[in-house]
Amino acid sequence: MSKADLGLIQKLREISGLGMLDCKKALEEAGNDLDKAIDLLRKKGAAVAAKRADKGTSEGIVHAYIHPGSQIGVLVEINCETDFVAKITEVRDFANDICLQIAALKPEFLAPEDVSPEFLAKERDILAEQLKNSGKPANMLDKIVEGRINKLYSEICLTKQPFLKNDTLTVEEAVKELMAKTGENIKIKRFARFEIGA
Amino acid sequence: MSKADLGLIQKLREISGLGMLDCKKALEEAGNDLDKAIDLLRKKGAAVAAKRADKGTSEGIVHAYIHPGSQIGVLVEINCETDFVAKITEVRDFANDICLQIAALKPEFLAPEDVSPEFLAKERDILAEQLKNSGKPANMLDKIVEGRINKLYSEICLTKQPFLKNDTLTVEEAVKELMAKTGENIKIKRFARFEIGA
Repeated sequence: MSKADLGLIQKLREISGLGMLDCKKALEEAGNDLDKAIDLLRKKGAAVAAKRADKGTSEGIVHAYIHPGSQIGVLVEINCETDFVAKITEVRDFANDICLQIAALKPEFLAPEDVSPEFLAKERDILAEQLKNSGKPANMLDKIVEGRINKLYSEICLTKQPFLKNDTLTVEEAVKELMAKTGENIKIKRFARFEIGA
Repeated sequence: MSKADLGLIQKLREISGLGMLDCKKALEEAGNDLDKAIDLLRKKGAAVAAKRADKGTSEGIVHAYIHPGSQIGVLVEINCETDFVAKITEVRDFANDICLQIAALKPEFLAPEDVSPEFLAKERDILAEQLKNSGKPANMLDKIVEGRINKLYSEICLTKQPFLKNDTLTVEEAVKELMAKTGENIKIKRFARFEIGA
């Protein structure tokens, strides 16, 4: 049985409201896995909330945009390192620009790594079929498919889209510019876009 | 090969911008499956957007709420039958009440049918373990577990939560009341809740 981590004991006490010893024992039994320790305590009857332990630590803001007519709405979370930077005008303006971007350009994913494998497989299949009778040499086809997939990313992935406010940059590059301006690590953590009838 | 459905041909023409005959042929090949017909057209090189066909038909509104301090944000979509009802004050007010409800009561799912099977299995496991040494007769245990699961739903599922504005009703019942008032079928279609550090 491993020794319980002191920081985790503290965290578990905050979450569960239980005493030091109970938390220590649960963490030791769970090999310092916080979620597992919570499950163990709950199995023993502790009234720990069924919700997952909040592991986030970053600062940031949540921003929304409702397009006039209320048929399109966007919610976005921007993370940064300090509460101070979260409150400055540049970050708020950027959050608003990103909301407008999402409303207008309808990204389906945050970044290429978020594109579902099924979606990608289907796209590759369609591209391969389109190119089959193109007469292009086989060794070029892979490169063409890759090029087209990258083009697809620039349409469906927010970070790869041209930044609407200044389309000499991608959204990814605009984030980097904001990082340089504020001196902090900044990222777009997540977004939701709802449209009536879509 | 099945005969192409006229309504679908029209829909496919709108989506693809292609002529009647191409759309008819694709739909026949695809057995009147719109998504499949789009894939077939794309494989033949038609410049149909990679996005899924928009099948929604309902009216409604998207509404957002940002809690002061911008650490919590909520986006909600309410559907109804007509554009007229979507615009009335009662529906707007209800959308706002639901946003406040989601911000405060943190539902994780829209309704019991949206709770993931893994989440449910884990909860059942924990409840069974808690009750094992309770001394209760075996034929009562199932009922107790069901009762606790229903209690859990009233915490984590939006439709089963007490309605904050008037907690003699559940959210589900508040929707029904609004349906009676407007004479239209109304539903909460989806929501997103972002909280910094959560």
